[in-house]
Amino acid sequence: MGIIVQKFGGTSVADSEKIKNVANAVIKEKLNGNDVVVVVSAMGHTTDNLVKLSKEITSHPSEREMDVLLSTGEQISMSLLAMAINELGYKAISLNGLQAGIRTENCHMCARIVDIDTTHTVNLLKQGYVVIVAGFQGFCGKNEITTLGRGGSDTTAVALAGALKADRCDIYSDVEGVYTTDPRVVKTAKKLDMISYEEMLELARVGANVLHPRSVETAKLYNMPMRVRSSFKLDNLGTLIIGVNQMELNKPVTGLACDSTQVRVVICDVEDKPGNAARLFNLLADRNLSVDMIIQSYARINNNTNDIAFTIAKSDLEKFELIKSDINDIVKASNIHIDDDIVKVSIVGAGMIDRPGIAAKMFDVLAQKGINIKMISTSEIKISCLIEKRFANDATIALCSAFELDGAKVADVKGDLPVV
Amino acid sequence: MGIIVQKFGGTSVADSEKIKNVANAVIKEKLNGNDVVVVVSAMGHTTDNLVKLSKEITSHPSEREMDVLLSTGEQISMSLLAMAINELGYKAISLNGLQAGIRTENCHMCARIVDIDTTHTVNLLKQGYVVIVAGFQGFCGKNEITTLGRGGSDTTAVALAGALKADRCDIYSDVEGVYTTDPRVVKTAKKLDMISYEEMLELARVGANVLHPRSVETAKLYNMPMRVRSSFKLDNLGTLIIGVNQMELNKPVTGLACDSTQVRVVICDVEDKPGNAARLFNLLADRNLSVDMIIQSYARINNNTNDIAFTIAKSDLEKFELIKSDINDIVKASNIHIDDDIVKVSIVGAGMIDRPGIAAKMFDVLAQKGINIKMISTSEIKISCLIEKRFANDATIALCSAFELDGAKVADVKGDLPVV
Repeated sequence: MGIIVQKFGGTSVADSEKIKNVANAVIKEKLNGNDVVVVVSAMGHTTDNLVKLSKEITSHPSEREMDVLLSTGEQISMSLLAMAINELGYKAISLNGLQAGIRTENCHMCARIVDIDTTHTVNLLKQGYVVIVAGFQGFCGKNEITTLGRGGSDTTAVALAGALKADRCDIYSDVEGVYTTDPRVVKTAKKLDMISYEEMLELARVGANVLHPRSVETAKLYNMPMRVRSSFKLDNLGTLIIGVNQMELNKPVTGLACDSTQVRVVICDVEDKPGNAARLFNLLADRNLSVDMIIQSYARINNNTNDIAFTIAKSDLEKFELIKSDINDIVKASNIHIDDDIVKVSIVGAGMIDRPGIAAKMFDVLAQKGINIKMISTSEIKISCLIEKRFANDATIALCSAFELDGAKVADVKGDLPVV
Repeated sequence: MGIIVQKFGGTSVADSEKIKNVANAVIKEKLNGNDVVVVVSAMGHTTDNLVKLSKEITSHPSEREMDVLLSTGEQISMSLLAMAINELGYKAISLNGLQAGIRTENCHMCARIVDIDTTHTVNLLKQGYVVIVAGFQGFCGKNEITTLGRGGSDTTAVALAGALKADRCDIYSDVEGVYTTDPRVVKTAKKLDMISYEEMLELARVGANVLHPRSVETAKLYNMPMRVRSSFKLDNLGTLIIGVNQMELNKPVTGLACDSTQVRVVICDVEDKPGNAARLFNLLADRNLSVDMIIQSYARINNNTNDIAFTIAKSDLEKFELIKSDINDIVKASNIHIDDDIVKVSIVGAGMIDRPGIAAKMFDVLAQKGINIKMISTSEIKISCLIEKRFANDATIALCSAFELDGAKVADVKGDLPVV
């Protein structure tokens, strides 16, 4: 008899009927002979509604008070789920972040978990309770409420599974598993039975938003097997995410993701002197601006300047505008050009490492479709190309076909862009 | 410079505009040079909506989980109020029951406060913060969430004021103060500038639901001056509630209340033997049924039986029906008769004690109107008469006039019953 941690997202607990459905999924696992710990998100649009309320009061809410406010969302869903499990005749008890001993850093709205004291949870499991824990939240100091930021509930589930030495962490949502690419774009995209943490991380980072990278990183750290599965199709085992060493066979390319949430920034004619790039990216880091796909061109012989290009998230553009003049002061650029007519298409696969020619094949497939590559970045198990937005679907379909990520035939593509 | 505790009810924080209004009321008191602690209820219908959600899940929710669920209501309003005060440029911080050190009995949904550790609150006040505390909730054990039941937020405010040795506890709501009688029935009812705890307690118990008796009892215990005032008319000082010794003048009758929430129960032909009444009322007490206005008739000479009559709350009728057969087993009654066509009209005044003839005058006024009195109960400062419901308004108006509880003329009476 082991411990299984189950996590249910906001859509899975959106109303009382769905909460009853989750209660059934929990009891199904309990009847398999396991101790069950359940992590829940806030119901449906609860968090959005709370954020809306705060915006009616102020445009600059205190981060501490936002955590006090938002943490109520999971406290509501966890207590309702406990009641629903009781109603089925089983013992259940709900714990908020503090009660579950989830200690975080001393900061608000994006705190990281530093320690989980599982004593209380383990005691309750021994007494036969299903223990329901609020996702997304923890505490710091004596009793200060903190939240974990985006992807928080998945991270709670995996970290808790690690601390409890659980057998597995199951992430239930409205998708049936991890697909080779977005099934809303390529209808014949294949569901993967298995994927490694490393591949999932690259897919998560490049925009396949099934799981937040934080939770996958945490699972990798604990070597905790995760399952991504549907809360509406309980018989479907979804996709198992495990260590790359535990995979039987590494396909060269496991998945493809298309990310339309980035913009390209080109800083033109930066004086080519030591430390300029460092100063530039330090400035961006100070403002918490994450940068991807950096390219610095060779210095032009004539005027000793070069161009620096990189991508940032569209949602960070506002922050970026605020420091444009600082950038000019530092690097004396002739122009700062922002291009939002781009998408980043990436192929991912742990098998890439010992199979040369994958990058060449990717560039070739794009070239054959007449698609110009604006930027390239690579990691050991990922190759990303920045291309014009209008080519997003063509590139997705051609690459899926070339790397066998789809079924027999390519589906009709709807919309003008992959929805990621 | 002293400490003022302010309490704002659900209607005062019902939406973001009203919360901003409350922020102004708080800052007004702060600018008077006082340290301010604010106790808030949940916004408007939040609690009702949470109860509704729980009912969709189960008809018998765990009391512990109900406390987890309902306590989120005040946590939402307190954080929003903190943001609204910040927005006005002042320091504010919100604390839930646990964070505010409000320790209660180890039970759920109607816990009593046993201790308040004010260390954290006092520290925050010293740092210049307005401290906002969730009403209605506390904690027991290590971090278990409890709630205080009906009248809970008022009780939190008064107990906190007592523990902080505050100068005053102001209860803000949508009424302007305590009136001689319900101003919705007798339009010329007078607002009292001052009333004693004892009188307020009797008025509160007999149905003038401005304040819950628990909060008045707590204020009396700490000898804490309370003010009942309107959150929408901040210049109006409302009604001050203080110790009877501090009152300059005790009028014989201060107020009148009419309570239509009771039913009369008559248990007929109870065998007249020692211990029967004790057994009966022990049975009721075991089921947590509060009883009022007990009358036992003289034993009939012929058959050695008597009738026992008492009143209980209408809302307890369902509980009462469950033990009717037990009552029959114990006291061998010939019949149990329930009469819900009654109201209890009560006059209250600390000056009654040393002025004989008040009761006689009350009975006389009712008799002159042809109103039959079905039951009578008295305390040192209160006389209550049970009468037929159809006479409620006539009795109210006649008694107000006789005891000078109204203005020059008696208002038109609307509705068929005083709304209490």
